[in-house]
Amino acid sequence: MSTSKPIAILGGTGDQGLGLALRFAAAGQRVVIGSRKSERALEAAEAVAKQVEGAQVEGRENAAATAGAEIVILSVPFEHTAGTLKSIRDALEPGQIVVSMGVPLATAVGDGPMRMVGVWQGSCAELVAGLVPEGVHTVSAFQNVSAHRLQTLSDPVDCDVVVSGPKQPRARISELCGLVPGLRAIDGGPLSNARIVESVTALLIGLNVRYKVPEGIGIRFTGLP
Amino acid sequence: MSTSKPIAILGGTGDQGLGLALRFAAAGQRVVIGSRKSERALEAAEAVAKQVEGAQVEGRENAAATAGAEIVILSVPFEHTAGTLKSIRDALEPGQIVVSMGVPLATAVGDGPMRMVGVWQGSCAELVAGLVPEGVHTVSAFQNVSAHRLQTLSDPVDCDVVVSGPKQPRARISELCGLVPGLRAIDGGPLSNARIVESVTALLIGLNVRYKVPEGIGIRFTGLP
Repeated sequence: MSTSKPIAILGGTGDQGLGLALRFAAAGQRVVIGSRKSERALEAAEAVAKQVEGAQVEGRENAAATAGAEIVILSVPFEHTAGTLKSIRDALEPGQIVVSMGVPLATAVGDGPMRMVGVWQGSCAELVAGLVPEGVHTVSAFQNVSAHRLQTLSDPVDCDVVVSGPKQPRARISELCGLVPGLRAIDGGPLSNARIVESVTALLIGLNVRYKVPEGIGIRFTGLP
Repeated sequence: MSTSKPIAILGGTGDQGLGLALRFAAAGQRVVIGSRKSERALEAAEAVAKQVEGAQVEGRENAAATAGAEIVILSVPFEHTAGTLKSIRDALEPGQIVVSMGVPLATAVGDGPMRMVGVWQGSCAELVAGLVPEGVHTVSAFQNVSAHRLQTLSDPVDCDVVVSGPKQPRARISELCGLVPGLRAIDGGPLSNARIVESVTALLIGLNVRYKVPEGIGIRFTGLP
């Protein structure tokens, strides 16, 4: 049993959060699934434990999941980003890394998922960075990875993850990506680049529809050293 | 000698325009390189003819290059987009396809190439669409393809091209992509998606710097049928 600090996945009951929970658990990481209701978090944790032998996984209410975690992944719909952060604010501590994977899709205002709404700060990730307490790091990652591919543990994910944010936390999240088969971290530079990465998700959603690929199209960068 | 209407590449004396001219000429297409000064266009045409045996390539001033072309590719720096369109407006005719490959990089205002300026219309491509005469189609393509890779005729380009715009012209430009080894057209849907594709270029420029890849990093989509 690993005694390292866990990875909290808030909104881990949703498709993409659950996919990440499965992958990290399968990679031997301690995972705590967070949800607004602890019963739903427990259900999701049980689902992970059923699929991954020896999984170190728990389920808790969001703030309880956040307390003591090394990494806190925000896997909630964009419109719940600020509210979720407010609800966990007291549990956050300097040194923790909050990972923003939200995308300001226009579904937030009742429009379609192939379009976006503008965010004053530039991106969901920058919105997050403005709301976390001082000393908590914000990293942008995982926006372009399809939930279906994450959840299909038998197959490698086959997708690059652009990781943006301050250097050290970015390196830590990149390391985490490397634990998942077929996931490759790409050095996405400063957090402000999240606005580009987030918008790629809207493009991918459109591609999934036009090419009829429910399992989700991914991206790869070519020509890397 | 093909008698089909040519592809005009305005700004074809620049790195990326010249790369496209080389590739299309090598694919047996008639190419007319356009420039503000006909002498410079002629020089670029000669450079293409030297590299590609049997190339059907000419060089003309922009408006003269535009007249009678089937496709007019705008390969000028973003800040010259509107000015170039005004200079060729009288030469454009209904049915022609104008291809926007410009990216509103912040270099347009003296800032760096990894950041962008906002465009009122949403993207360079939509700016173009608002400036061409009625009946002229606008398609967005080629923003993410590195000049160096295009110019290295010995190697396949190894990059996807997201093509956005109205259906028929989009299909025509996609067909054109298919003639270049290693270039694959991706159905990018409506022209408004150009704002995403254009921003990816700024991300790629940053990646080229961080990963020290002067030949240019490209993108591929995974999971396509």
